[in-house]
Amino acid sequence: MMQDINVLKRGIGVNFDKDGLAEVRVWAPDATQVCLVAESLSLELQSDDFGYWTAISDLIKPGMYYEFVLDNGRPLPDPAALAQPDGVHGRSMAMRLDYGWNDLSWQNIPLQDYIFYELHPGTFTAVGDFNGVADRLDHLILLGVTAIELMPVAAFPGKRNWGYDGVFPFAVQESYGGLASLQRLVDLCHQKGLAVVLDVVYNHLGPEGNCLAEFGPYFTDKYKTPWGNALNFDDQDSDGVRAFFVENALMWFRDFHVDALRLDAVHAIKDFGAVHILQQIRTYTDLLIQQTGRMHYLIAECDLNDPRYITPVEANGLGMDAQWVDEFHHALKVSGGEPAKGYYKDFSGIRHLAKSYKDAYVYTDMYSKERKKTFGRSATGHAPSQFVVFSQNHDQTGNRMLGERTSMLFSFELYKLFAAAVLFSPYLPMLFMGEEWGETNPFLYFVNHGDQGLIEMVRAGRGAEFAEMFAEGSPPDPQDEATFMHSKLNWNLLSEDRHACIFRYYQRLIALRKRYLSSKNTRNVIVLEEDNCLLLEQGTSGQDSLVLCVMNFSAHQHILDIPGHILISEELLNSAAAQWLGTGSTLIENNPKKIIVQPESFIAYTARYV
Amino acid sequence: MMQDINVLKRGIGVNFDKDGLAEVRVWAPDATQVCLVAESLSLELQSDDFGYWTAISDLIKPGMYYEFVLDNGRPLPDPAALAQPDGVHGRSMAMRLDYGWNDLSWQNIPLQDYIFYELHPGTFTAVGDFNGVADRLDHLILLGVTAIELMPVAAFPGKRNWGYDGVFPFAVQESYGGLASLQRLVDLCHQKGLAVVLDVVYNHLGPEGNCLAEFGPYFTDKYKTPWGNALNFDDQDSDGVRAFFVENALMWFRDFHVDALRLDAVHAIKDFGAVHILQQIRTYTDLLIQQTGRMHYLIAECDLNDPRYITPVEANGLGMDAQWVDEFHHALKVSGGEPAKGYYKDFSGIRHLAKSYKDAYVYTDMYSKERKKTFGRSATGHAPSQFVVFSQNHDQTGNRMLGERTSMLFSFELYKLFAAAVLFSPYLPMLFMGEEWGETNPFLYFVNHGDQGLIEMVRAGRGAEFAEMFAEGSPPDPQDEATFMHSKLNWNLLSEDRHACIFRYYQRLIALRKRYLSSKNTRNVIVLEEDNCLLLEQGTSGQDSLVLCVMNFSAHQHILDIPGHILISEELLNSAAAQWLGTGSTLIENNPKKIIVQPESFIAYTARYV
Repeated sequence: MMQDINVLKRGIGVNFDKDGLAEVRVWAPDATQVCLVAESLSLELQSDDFGYWTAISDLIKPGMYYEFVLDNGRPLPDPAALAQPDGVHGRSMAMRLDYGWNDLSWQNIPLQDYIFYELHPGTFTAVGDFNGVADRLDHLILLGVTAIELMPVAAFPGKRNWGYDGVFPFAVQESYGGLASLQRLVDLCHQKGLAVVLDVVYNHLGPEGNCLAEFGPYFTDKYKTPWGNALNFDDQDSDGVRAFFVENALMWFRDFHVDALRLDAVHAIKDFGAVHILQQIRTYTDLLIQQTGRMHYLIAECDLNDPRYITPVEANGLGMDAQWVDEFHHALKVSGGEPAKGYYKDFSGIRHLAKSYKDAYVYTDMYSKERKKTFGRSATGHAPSQFVVFSQNHDQTGNRMLGERTSMLFSFELYKLFAAAVLFSPYLPMLFMGEEWGETNPFLYFVNHGDQGLIEMVRAGRGAEFAEMFAEGSPPDPQDEATFMHSKLNWNLLSEDRHACIFRYYQRLIALRKRYLSSKNTRNVIVLEEDNCLLLEQGTSGQDSLVLCVMNFSAHQHILDIPGHILISEELLNSAAAQWLGTGSTLIENNPKKIIVQPESFIAYTARYV
Repeated sequence: MMQDINVLKRGIGVNFDKDGLAEVRVWAPDATQVCLVAESLSLELQSDDFGYWTAISDLIKPGMYYEFVLDNGRPLPDPAALAQPDGVHGRSMAMRLDYGWNDLSWQNIPLQDYIFYELHPGTFTAVGDFNGVADRLDHLILLGVTAIELMPVAAFPGKRNWGYDGVFPFAVQESYGGLASLQRLVDLCHQKGLAVVLDVVYNHLGPEGNCLAEFGPYFTDKYKTPWGNALNFDDQDSDGVRAFFVENALMWFRDFHVDALRLDAVHAIKDFGAVHILQQIRTYTDLLIQQTGRMHYLIAECDLNDPRYITPVEANGLGMDAQWVDEFHHALKVSGGEPAKGYYKDFSGIRHLAKSYKDAYVYTDMYSKERKKTFGRSATGHAPSQFVVFSQNHDQTGNRMLGERTSMLFSFELYKLFAAAVLFSPYLPMLFMGEEWGETNPFLYFVNHGDQGLIEMVRAGRGAEFAEMFAEGSPPDPQDEATFMHSKLNWNLLSEDRHACIFRYYQRLIALRKRYLSSKNTRNVIVLEEDNCLLLEQGTSGQDSLVLCVMNFSAHQHILDIPGHILISEELLNSAAAQWLGTGSTLIENNPKKIIVQPESFIAYTARYV
């Protein structure tokens, strides 16, 4: 039968039982001898089933450095190390995973109530670690978001990285504060009522310091990903690789109390087996939920417009709870005038934005000129809470050559319109750190590799990648520390009038979302294509009441005829109001069926169907 | 929107409308100029949407040779050619697809009534073509099978090939008789009440004479198959590739009246798109069925033990009607003493055979030592008519180094036991040509390539591939015509007593299957592991009556205690009876609860539950 994974206890790496005895287990299916060497200690492991090697020892202590030696080769760090204090090329450190949690009354919030706040721990604050994040939680509470989403924290080369170059999926990056510091942060979030989402990368490993292939066939050349050979999820000896990542997901939930995982680019996970690795992660996550009674969500980044990813395993789906919808972002930006270059070429503006409001995916069995193929499939029938939308995120910002945030690219009025378009959407909204005050520093691509050849490759790659899309010239040097420093948030902006206004505006949007949109489950979209305006009606089955959003993406004032089937009640928000440093807008007197919609503005009303 | 495929008319290649006007359409998305050259004619094609080039001409006539010239390159045959009279390196020939059908009253038989007879047109008879097959249909009617399954007929290099090296999926192999000859054969089969299944290869193209890549990105290096780069079903410009194969499936159904397709090795079709190419083939097949009212089935060869392949598209399945189950074969052969080498290593004999009788798949979420991974998923809930089983087929015979048929490897008694095990199974049985009389000629691997380097590679490959599994020494030369000639059936055997007896035995098995098993939909299996015996009960929901099969795979007589819940009525067949040249077997007198089961024998009874 298949190998078993105990959901209640980490089954790989070095772990300590309650008596302090170290249990060592490492997967090395082709090795004929495996030793753990730790300072003066050398411990021979015993061969176990399925290619694992094990030992139990009272000589290994928390805080002890250790490595593995396979077949008398060079000492290697532990693929499942919990800490790499000296970096990805250094030795692993044995650590205890237990922690004195203070969040035992914490209940994860329902998925439909998630309002995500994506942040990069290194650039969120000046100190650039988990303590820095902890110090700013009250700001987030004030803002009103309900979940922080941490960009990947798995140990990566050097001190600066977005996180997608991680090579020790179980080790928390040292420069962020390491294992216990992350546990403290989650604990604190929960005490303050914030959920924690962690971005994890199960589709590739970084190019520097990756020692996994020396332990076993973690990679396959059967499939290619944009980042090299794919992880081996369906070829010979894939069970050990699959177990490695299942263990990883379970660890974040169980030992770090993480509420949800954001699985990076699952379209690059290649698995043709009868049980997809995502299904296996889902199944074990459900087992853990059963055992602990704590809820956990799985959210995928997926670029396939394939609703199978967010369909339950029982219905032949891959079992993810929700997924990101980049297409909403693209349609929104093009609606606001983003030039149709690169992947924006496929998007027509408000017609596609309307499609996304209705169907989440824009491309559903439609020919994409950019992809040069028919793309996608309808997700009809899936709940709005299965889709995450945003007007900014790390990729959409940092993958511009100059890393400009939306605040630097669009007018103040459009900035507010975008924010409202996201926060009044039927989907789960996500903000990107600093967005809430209109941060003006860029978010650039930065690395801190040790390998000179790799540094040159990254430099060249960045230059080439975005040449067509965004600008002439060459991008800032990713390896230069200044690039990283320049990407840090400037919290001082919050005290400036205009930025403070944006913050209050976001507060209001979030408060209105929580109050008025939580029970809405029907929607209708009207496109006024010539005027670049869009009307979004959100109602509740069987009830008359609705929330009507009016969005004018044009540079012109629009006199809107309120549709005959709608009677407006209360104005909830007008982004053009003086309060939001706009030019103001009024209901035309004596004719409540017409309203003036200012250029690049958003108005929300409560209303009812007549 | 996506490109449209007209199910009622072939949309690629050269086709003639009812007025004899030629419609030319070829996919060449990267070309800047495309000409059709035909004898003295040179016709420039017009660029159309989605990378197609078209022309309409009254100068092209059926029987005319033609080629395409892209961007002034060398003349190339048509990827969608209907005929390659001078072989795969020669010019294409324009052909009419219409045919005066005499089978208009033909109704495809229900899938559950299929009894397949797999045959290779080249070795089935001395003449080795479709006419040869046609001449032997009465033999098959006499035998009782209900469908012939033709190994692939798409044009391949040279005159001899199993068919899996085909490079013109729309052209019928010239040495088999070509297009019209295949139409005549299908027409005749239908008039005689036989269904026709065609083996098609949508996972790769053969290595010689494959010109597709010169027309467009038919292949991708994102995925690898055992036969080289995968066909491009999900990358840029894949729409044209997908349409090519959808058109192919539709053509066999519509223009050749083929009743079912057997899709070769669908596990090697790599498609990560939101709509899998098999789903697309299913959808268009259903459209055609709607339009014509004629039923067609899609049967996959699949080595993944993944029931998603045979699950409806509406339930996120890939929509195949049925699939082959090689594992039944392996378990059956090991039950009969096949040495556990190569892929047989995974099989334990009757315990696994019982698993297959119950669940179709043997490996369901179980660790496979041979595959070195956890494999498969349960197919519980799928109808028995979704699985095709056999004790012999072209692969299981021809992929032995010496191509020995079962008749040469197992005793006469086991031979009869295997036959009954298949024909009394709850699944759809398949015979391999000559099996019904115990053919003793081998079925060897043969090719007739023109490329000397390729010939050497094939020779070396065959030597290496089966070295471990079956024999010492080197295999017969695949390129040698004698290898092909030696693989032909020897119909003279049918007049020899022992072989004639086998034929009558198969007739009886088939007749009994038709009479007694058609309504059975429940089953129970009892394993007597120590005695290497297996009891298979097949009943009908809500009824007492059942068919009980007793299989003794051991070399010893077995005194069987009939289970207490069963009361035997009538003996339907005993493979050890004198009639079948066996040693005989009797119910023990005065004790109807005990029966003597001769070594390596099969007994079937009608019975009822008490």
